[in-house]
Amino acid sequence: MWTHRHLLGIAQLSREDILCVLEAALAWYAMPRAEAKNARVLQGRSVVNLFFESSTRTRTSFEAAAKRLGADVVNVSPQTSSVTKGETLLDTVRNLEALRADAIVLRHPASGAPDFVSGHTRACIVNAGDGAHEHPTQALLDAFTIRRKGKRFEGLVVAICGDILHSRVARSNALLLGALGAQVRLCGPRTLLPRAAEALGPTVRVVPRVEDAVLGADVVMALRIQTERLAGAMIPSTREYAQTFGVGARVLELAKPDAIVMHPGPINRGVEIESRVADGPQSVILDQVEAGIAVRMAVLELVVGAGDSNRERA
Amino acid sequence: MWTHRHLLGIAQLSREDILCVLEAALAWYAMPRAEAKNARVLQGRSVVNLFFESSTRTRTSFEAAAKRLGADVVNVSPQTSSVTKGETLLDTVRNLEALRADAIVLRHPASGAPDFVSGHTRACIVNAGDGAHEHPTQALLDAFTIRRKGKRFEGLVVAICGDILHSRVARSNALLLGALGAQVRLCGPRTLLPRAAEALGPTVRVVPRVEDAVLGADVVMALRIQTERLAGAMIPSTREYAQTFGVGARVLELAKPDAIVMHPGPINRGVEIESRVADGPQSVILDQVEAGIAVRMAVLELVVGAGDSNRERA
Amino acid sequence: MWTHRHLLGIAQLSREDILCVLEAALAWYAMPRAEAKNARVLQGRSVVNLFFESSTRTRTSFEAAAKRLGADVVNVSPQTSSVTKGETLLDTVRNLEALRADAIVLRHPASGAPDFVSGHTRACIVNAGDGAHEHPTQALLDAFTIRRKGKRFEGLVVAICGDILHSRVARSNALLLGALGAQVRLCGPRTLLPRAAEALGPTVRVVPRVEDAVLGADVVMALRIQTERLAGAMIPSTREYAQTFGVGARVLELAKPDAIVMHPGPINRGVEIESRVADGPQSVILDQVEAGIAVRMAVLELVVGAGDSNRERA
Repeated sequence: MWTHRHLLGIAQLSREDILCVLEAALAWYAMPRAEAKNARVLQGRSVVNLFFESSTRTRTSFEAAAKRLGADVVNVSPQTSSVTKGETLLDTVRNLEALRADAIVLRHPASGAPDFVSGHTRACIVNAGDGAHEHPTQALLDAFTIRRKGKRFEGLVVAICGDILHSRVARSNALLLGALGAQVRLCGPRTLLPRAAEALGPTVRVVPRVEDAVLGADVVMALRIQTERLAGAMIPSTREYAQTFGVGARVLELAKPDAIVMHPGPINRGVEIESRVADGPQSVILDQVEAGIAVRMAVLELVVGAGDSNRERA
Repeated sequence: MWTHRHLLGIAQLSREDILCVLEAALAWYAMPRAEAKNARVLQGRSVVNLFFESSTRTRTSFEAAAKRLGADVVNVSPQTSSVTKGETLLDTVRNLEALRADAIVLRHPASGAPDFVSGHTRACIVNAGDGAHEHPTQALLDAFTIRRKGKRFEGLVVAICGDILHSRVARSNALLLGALGAQVRLCGPRTLLPRAAEALGPTVRVVPRVEDAVLGADVVMALRIQTERLAGAMIPSTREYAQTFGVGARVLELAKPDAIVMHPGPINRGVEIESRVADGPQSVILDQVEAGIAVRMAVLELVVGAGDSNRERA
Repeated sequence: MWTHRHLLGIAQLSREDILCVLEAALAWYAMPRAEAKNARVLQGRSVVNLFFESSTRTRTSFEAAAKRLGADVVNVSPQTSSVTKGETLLDTVRNLEALRADAIVLRHPASGAPDFVSGHTRACIVNAGDGAHEHPTQALLDAFTIRRKGKRFEGLVVAICGDILHSRVARSNALLLGALGAQVRLCGPRTLLPRAAEALGPTVRVVPRVEDAVLGADVVMALRIQTERLAGAMIPSTREYAQTFGVGARVLELAKPDAIVMHPGPINRGVEIESRVADGPQSVILDQVEAGIAVRMAVLELVVGAGDSNRERA
């Protein structure tokens, strides 16, 4: 049974917790939309999207999920608002709680920010990405997609290629996939690999060459390269990156014939992924986006439900 | 019967299509609001406003229309979001489709952008203005307003004054009014007139002097002058523009006594229109705004309905 | 009985009007949320937040209040929109009215802006802060909070400390509390005190030293210092301000033992208020935020209701 009032990271979840989210998400995924609308399990509830970094994609997905559950949604973007100037994160969160937010979906540039505030609020905190730490709903929707495509996690070989060092997506995925028994190979330029990747789990290891990482893989996941930030600093150029670490048709041939290709988006065509791979038959990139709503519906329902149970017990 | 899954431009519509929208809009216009709310023909549907140019007015009107039909509305403004950086328009649209957007209301600076993406998505595309090409819902709401004021289109004389060259409003109006049998006179500084205005239809012609254009007209439509962009470049000064091409009380006397004055807004008082004309008894500028919601309700209902029919047949 | 179609300021309200809002707010405050949701007294109505100054807090509070009453809410932020360029405030308001806004919640840097437009629109205007003039819903929620904490207004001693000169919060509070029979002491650096504070009411006076202002007070209200704007100009430094006028534990000991501490937020910890006071047992700062929704629900319901009555009579 789900007992977490907050979703702070995959590291907090047991194998059973992960499967619980995936089950719940499948129910929402399969339910006709008109029916979901009538369920309205969060009718009368308020969800606040509190995004300290801009993100059209994740914000929109959470917004659609919350609305589909019948909740009111308010978007707050402190980076475009002068009003929170000088206010601490905790004061902002407490204010939203006083405005009767049931759940706060928080994206913040500081690793650990959701963790910190969760200890000081009655609202449920859902981590929508914190620094280079975790992005748990992304990993959950990736797992949902992998399962929807008929894969079993036990013994699954997953190659994750790109800027592993700065990627909360890689981190959450390594933790989640490891917990479910998959083999995770992390691959990228030496400057973008963490020093102690193996600390993420016994089934996680670094594989420097993309060809070795992809060889025999069931899942090939390319990560977004922050071209404007990295080119010239951590990588020689985007062109060279594409040649050496980009997921192209040639590299993909080394994977299993039924391997799927994933990307958290938005994609840089021709940099970390070739267009014909992104648009090809093995790509499940848009399936990932679609899975996002169902997974976030499940997460919002579960954490708000756990919050209610806690209050009843108290 | 309406069969268009997308509304890309007036050029795509037959005379019957145009009348179909105007009929449907009239039904929404006349319906008491509480009743419209109960109709909720788009209950459980998602409409995304994807605006690559800022527009409070059009965005707000579409948002109100969609909400009145019971749809969920999500606003996405890529120009204020760093996340779509490097992502192609088509990828953005496909992502929104994967987020289960039923209709995407698209404003884009590039002419033809809605047309292009409509060929690659299952979502209904509604053009909310593309470059200097078309702004079909504006022309439809203008026609709705003209009819509400008791005018018949056959033989109607319409003078459109201003920056015709860059105006998607002028273009869509010329096409629509021409299709319904009206005479359209386009008027403006020589630098702001298209070379081949007559290509817009057999009843469309350029009339260089505003006095000639307005003489005996049933409808006088002033277009917004982008003062910050044009003054000093395409026109000598806003003051001189006002004197030569502005719609003032003196010029308006040349029109029919029961002529109406239109403007797509927002107005520059004292530039393209005199305040006493904008606020005078012949002005229907606010009627246009009001018509906008009913017309956009009709358009959203029609295109989403056509999309459903297509899927059922498929 | 409430007859005001607009809420422009406390100055417009009688003692009975104020008590009427507080009563109505109490009903919403006490009502379980699911029940409030079912009441939906503004079902099918549209509320527009028209904010010419950014304000996450007040905007979010009005948005939550309107949604809880069943209204559609549209946020319009002209400062981030190029479209309203050159358009007058009155034209913007008339456009929103034509878009069938029932109520327009207006924040504007110019004192008197809500007053001005209210004379020219059928929509209900709610002042959400105009220049240094008034912020009536803040004063109403402050009064609501004071009463919730068991205080009686007659003879109540209220110390308001900070930038009185530029504060619409201080002004609205002085007017409201004076009308209900409270004694108001205004306190702050000489450069930030109005010349004629006593004009706000017979029970309002300036008390230059914070120790004298707080002595025996029932309510101590600290105002936000615009540190970025004032430091070096109107006050020597934020540090010196904190020492001389900040509400700290030492000063608070001079107040009545059961005194409450208020702040309109967002707080500058260590400047106008010490952290241990803001977080201490006497602080009701988050109660104020919570009261905001109930008060704004009451205000929206009352003004829209008055608008309906006016139209029926007409």
